[in-house]
Amino acid sequence: MSDGNQGGKLKVVGQRPIRPDGVDKVTGRAQFGADFHLPGMLAGRIKRSPHAHARIVKIDASAAASLPGVKAIVTSVDFDRGASGEVEAGEGHTAIREVAENCLASGKVLYVGHAVAAVAATHPEIAAEAIDLIEVTYEALPHVIDVEEAMAPGAPLLHADLFTKGVNPKPDKPSNIALKSVMGRGDVPGAFKSADVIVEGRYTTAAVHQGYIEPHACVASWGADGQSTVWCSSQGQFLVRALVAKILGMPLSDLKVIPAEIGGGFGGKTTVYLEPVALALSRKCGRPVKLVMSREEVFLASGPTSGSVMDVKIAATKDGKITGAEMMLAYQAGAFPGSPVHLGCMTAFACYDVENLALVGYDVVSNRPKVAAYRAPGAPMAAFAVESAIDELARKLGMDPIDLRLKNAVRDGAKTVYGATVKSAAFVETLEMVKASAHYKTPLAKGQARGVAAGFWFNIGGESSAAVHVDEDGGVTVVSSNPDIGGSRASMAMMAAETLGLPIERVRCIIGDTASIGYSGSTGGSRVTFATGMAVVQAAEKVVADLKRRAAETWGCDLAMVEWADGVAKCADPSKDAKPLSMKAIASRSAKTGGPIAAEVSINAQGAAAGYGVHLCDLEIDPETGRSTVIRYTAAQDVGRAIHPAYVEGQLQGGAAQGIGWALNEEYVYGKSGQLENASFLDYRMPVASDLPMIDTILVEARPNPRHPYGAKGVGEVPIVPPLAAVANAVSHIVGERMTSLPLSPAKVLAAMAKR
Amino acid sequence: MSDGNQGGKLKVVGQRPIRPDGVDKVTGRAQFGADFHLPGMLAGRIKRSPHAHARIVKIDASAAASLPGVKAIVTSVDFDRGASGEVEAGEGHTAIREVAENCLASGKVLYVGHAVAAVAATHPEIAAEAIDLIEVTYEALPHVIDVEEAMAPGAPLLHADLFTKGVNPKPDKPSNIALKSVMGRGDVPGAFKSADVIVEGRYTTAAVHQGYIEPHACVASWGADGQSTVWCSSQGQFLVRALVAKILGMPLSDLKVIPAEIGGGFGGKTTVYLEPVALALSRKCGRPVKLVMSREEVFLASGPTSGSVMDVKIAATKDGKITGAEMMLAYQAGAFPGSPVHLGCMTAFACYDVENLALVGYDVVSNRPKVAAYRAPGAPMAAFAVESAIDELARKLGMDPIDLRLKNAVRDGAKTVYGATVKSAAFVETLEMVKASAHYKTPLAKGQARGVAAGFWFNIGGESSAAVHVDEDGGVTVVSSNPDIGGSRASMAMMAAETLGLPIERVRCIIGDTASIGYSGSTGGSRVTFATGMAVVQAAEKVVADLKRRAAETWGCDLAMVEWADGVAKCADPSKDAKPLSMKAIASRSAKTGGPIAAEVSINAQGAAAGYGVHLCDLEIDPETGRSTVIRYTAAQDVGRAIHPAYVEGQLQGGAAQGIGWALNEEYVYGKSGQLENASFLDYRMPVASDLPMIDTILVEARPNPRHPYGAKGVGEVPIVPPLAAVANAVSHIVGERMTSLPLSPAKVLAAMAKR
Repeated sequence: MSDGNQGGKLKVVGQRPIRPDGVDKVTGRAQFGADFHLPGMLAGRIKRSPHAHARIVKIDASAAASLPGVKAIVTSVDFDRGASGEVEAGEGHTAIREVAENCLASGKVLYVGHAVAAVAATHPEIAAEAIDLIEVTYEALPHVIDVEEAMAPGAPLLHADLFTKGVNPKPDKPSNIALKSVMGRGDVPGAFKSADVIVEGRYTTAAVHQGYIEPHACVASWGADGQSTVWCSSQGQFLVRALVAKILGMPLSDLKVIPAEIGGGFGGKTTVYLEPVALALSRKCGRPVKLVMSREEVFLASGPTSGSVMDVKIAATKDGKITGAEMMLAYQAGAFPGSPVHLGCMTAFACYDVENLALVGYDVVSNRPKVAAYRAPGAPMAAFAVESAIDELARKLGMDPIDLRLKNAVRDGAKTVYGATVKSAAFVETLEMVKASAHYKTPLAKGQARGVAAGFWFNIGGESSAAVHVDEDGGVTVVSSNPDIGGSRASMAMMAAETLGLPIERVRCIIGDTASIGYSGSTGGSRVTFATGMAVVQAAEKVVADLKRRAAETWGCDLAMVEWADGVAKCADPSKDAKPLSMKAIASRSAKTGGPIAAEVSINAQGAAAGYGVHLCDLEIDPETGRSTVIRYTAAQDVGRAIHPAYVEGQLQGGAAQGIGWALNEEYVYGKSGQLENASFLDYRMPVASDLPMIDTILVEARPNPRHPYGAKGVGEVPIVPPLAAVANAVSHIVGERMTSLPLSPAKVLAAMAKR
Repeated sequence: MSDGNQGGKLKVVGQRPIRPDGVDKVTGRAQFGADFHLPGMLAGRIKRSPHAHARIVKIDASAAASLPGVKAIVTSVDFDRGASGEVEAGEGHTAIREVAENCLASGKVLYVGHAVAAVAATHPEIAAEAIDLIEVTYEALPHVIDVEEAMAPGAPLLHADLFTKGVNPKPDKPSNIALKSVMGRGDVPGAFKSADVIVEGRYTTAAVHQGYIEPHACVASWGADGQSTVWCSSQGQFLVRALVAKILGMPLSDLKVIPAEIGGGFGGKTTVYLEPVALALSRKCGRPVKLVMSREEVFLASGPTSGSVMDVKIAATKDGKITGAEMMLAYQAGAFPGSPVHLGCMTAFACYDVENLALVGYDVVSNRPKVAAYRAPGAPMAAFAVESAIDELARKLGMDPIDLRLKNAVRDGAKTVYGATVKSAAFVETLEMVKASAHYKTPLAKGQARGVAAGFWFNIGGESSAAVHVDEDGGVTVVSSNPDIGGSRASMAMMAAETLGLPIERVRCIIGDTASIGYSGSTGGSRVTFATGMAVVQAAEKVVADLKRRAAETWGCDLAMVEWADGVAKCADPSKDAKPLSMKAIASRSAKTGGPIAAEVSINAQGAAAGYGVHLCDLEIDPETGRSTVIRYTAAQDVGRAIHPAYVEGQLQGGAAQGIGWALNEEYVYGKSGQLENASFLDYRMPVASDLPMIDTILVEARPNPRHPYGAKGVGEVPIVPPLAAVANAVSHIVGERMTSLPLSPAKVLAAMAKR
């Protein structure tokens, strides 16, 4: 593997070429999930539960079926009842049966909006009418929305067969607690016994949605011989293939999934909602079917991330050394198990070298939509609690909050609570750069406060494939195996161009469908630039080796004498009359030197490096309304090396903006009947451009990842981890008391201020 | 490379699995060129010349441009005027400038139907109206249709800059003869001087069209940043990319060509007519544009194959040894150079070992549509002349026509007139099997006659790419780089299945677009099963090697001890407790053994073997109408090894049917003004099912090609070579005189019978 630092010789990596998908997106030509059209295509619609929890007694679709124009109706009986097992999905695995039951309820509905049946008809209006004609008889059951209520004895049970995992011996009664995750080390009681100072508190966060611009959408087409195609927007065409094929009982090779352009995912598109339903409808009537969610359906029936309840307690010496900590995390899973509470436990204290730690996490089901991944799943809530507590500790000790963090910051060689060894970490450098920043040195005006918080994400590698194809005119196409949710077409092309010595304009990157390129894990976990990038570089290196071989054969010189630089082969043997051979020259006569020039590489990439972020938030509060306004915001991050810095800055800005929304405004509001009361962007308030200042960024490139050819670390997750506490710490300083419950909505802040 | 014979161990190759594209095609789900639809797509129409030859004085599109709904109008000025050079196309090369001028006339129109301008509008009706509103001012020029007239001094010249190639010194005057192709060996005058018997004659054939079911069709979409996509039906997505990109002055990597299902090509889709026009229209207005030819446009403006005039003269001893031959071939090129006369010269006598040979071919332009390839381009006409002459020789000598051919048949080690050494030829075996067939032994009824004729095609290899991707469940997808015009998805999947030891149901084959797979030459020349098949087998072999490596690592055993058979790895080392590992078992844990399992291979395949055919045609003629009816027909062919025998039989049957049509009915009929008078299937009479008997086939597998892993030879071209003479020989026997002018239409036959 190449030197991650490259001795400053990089020509493409680190530049800011125009984004390859930009023109298509701003001109409206990009094809998103809803933009596909096939001859004879039908419009699908989904019938959803009005109950938070109910038994399905009967589904009578006879009236709907006799409506002219209705071509197919499906319910859960149209899925393969034997579907079981798990599918790789980003940081973890997804249980296929639960995905199926979330796509179409079987036996019970578990939340308002849970899909019960679906119709395909010749026109959307007919499909909508048919949906109304489907009569579902329900037997309503008591429901539970809140995590703590769901954990309490006697709570309404969602799943009669759910027994808490991670408990020994296995419990004898079912429960809403799907998993108890325990992690720790050292002597925690001892640490608290000998502590100079202890801070503790209970922190809560609300369920928040990723809020991607593009609602879920797909077109599915079943062949009479079983060969089928799904076009959809997702974070993983291979994941969609695996889930849909298993849910419908198909061999994988019968299904081709063609990735559409994606209008935002943030983790929320690492599962399926519509695709198996659309293909089941298509299978039933033999015509292609399109399904598109409304925004209301996105809120009701796609995964937000967990709301949480956390108890955190930290022990420290009077000079600021954190000696021990304990934490309880209870995360909403929604209707089926699978909250990221385990990841919350892993990441909560990962920025700090704490000798004695005890964490326990609970994954709790309740009558809400099943959660989905959302940037750094599980980490922002945990960091909110921990970074708030550390802020409180700094106040108690009278220490600068960055100095306190520097004193406890992890350095290379430290062990994380989950057993990893810290490598090429630049957390210390990131803290130091923030401390030295103009922002941190700028005094605050009256009524303003500054919050500081840090964040961590481990980042992953994993299975990826890539191909590099050389055109006859010396141009290059790179086939990536991952949907581009954050600029990976640019970064893949840049890494290929760098390796091949070509200008970026000569390299294009496309996203292969499931048949055209080797398998890849999903786009998530901040793995693509690292893992798929590594596959791209290895494929490009194979191409360079092949180009050198062809040049050597053309010249009749020793292969060792061929040098490849700047897209040109040169012969170092002065005895040969060897005119330099450009990429174009070699490509144009490839037929004479062994055929087309191409390479495909599949790997399981190891050596991803964790990332660290430190955010500063200056804020003021309108004392009349309680509305918080972010005045200035800086996001600094240990990024290894930024392949395309503008995209990396965009990741930092986007994560900060989402985190600010999470901190200040966003939440799922439920009524007594378990009805989500704010299922629209009017009522679910995400920050818009006019709500925010320009987010300043500091890219810390002090420690390129030596296990990646160009030093890349994942950068997409970290930026959403610090903002919750950065914002809350600033609000707490103004309010004058520790604000522990997100969102810090105007009403809540006003009430706290009034109380004082 | 594997043994072509495989010792009879083949399990998939040679079987007849259900065709993978069958259901899609019979249910109407297959997506042909005209079946794509994009949001905002416009309908295109082409303005065509009413003149056979004229100067374009002026094109006034102002009225058309102001018609509401018209979004773009293009003429040849919208093409890159600097486009030059050649592009690989099957057996030869295509001059880019001439393709461009054929797509949109520049300066002059050269045939009735020559494209002059094109319009894109919101509706087809508006586009049609706009086409009528475009005013083209022409200055009519004298035209020439007939080859001999075009060759005559003083003929109207099509191209002022066309000087006959192959003539030394270079001519000082332009001419309609684009090329003089000379081949030969030995002492031809000496052979004729010492001959016991000489036959000679002048033979003519008419221009005939491939008659594919699907007219040319495409959708083109230009991106504001130049990144563009073309969906079209063609015999080579890479050829389309190369031609369109060069004609529009684009780098290849800016254009992605997505191959549609193809409704027949037969060589006629190895060039472009619509694609550069559609993309130029899209470039002008920024919206996708669809262009579809009507059947009339297909006849007027796409390439038929050449009509021809040939003089042949053969010298032989009285016991039937052919001692020498000379031949003149003049082939219509249509409006631009490029008839397959060179291939006619190469193949004319290739079935026979003739010591003294002199061939001269002329490629002649005239005011007809530019010819395109048509199965075994150039060979059927040449074989018509030679096999008719040999039939006459057999009659003269009183020899059995098969015995005469056996006496002169090429055997391995012989040299062709173009310098190749004959290898693994089974012409002798094919003749012997026909002679021994029930058909040949069946006596004829009164009024019937039997024609015998042979045919040859050299077949080619060339550049091909393929990938093999293993799914997580152990299924396999093969990516072929060639459109499937004759069943190559089946044969590719079968060869992969055979190599991997899987049942065919576990292997799918798809056709990659130009971005998703390495470069490949076009589907043509009977190269795909051979060359792309070789790439598929090599990729599958790489996968097997990888599977064995993973099994060895799993067991901790020596790689050499791992055996792979029937899709299962077994360990031959008894000291290991190594449970056999299936494909599925290895695939499901690929992440732990190095990542996804995939391989892509690009090659320039060498070692294609020629094919030989012998056809028998029993025929009778209605004495009142002159209509010939084929009573019984057998096509025998040296096929190496048939990968999927049903497809191979289909190739033989299809070639025979097309050849019978060529012999009996098909021709381009021109009026005095140079107008094609039969541009429809009503007036251009192709044989339909009710015109023909079942075509019997004999697959001769006596000599598998040892240079292909499974012994394949190309099979798609040979079957159209013998029928012209097989039919004509039978007709000649009934009429009682040598019929030398095709088609043998009822009127022509009736006239000949009346004359006697």
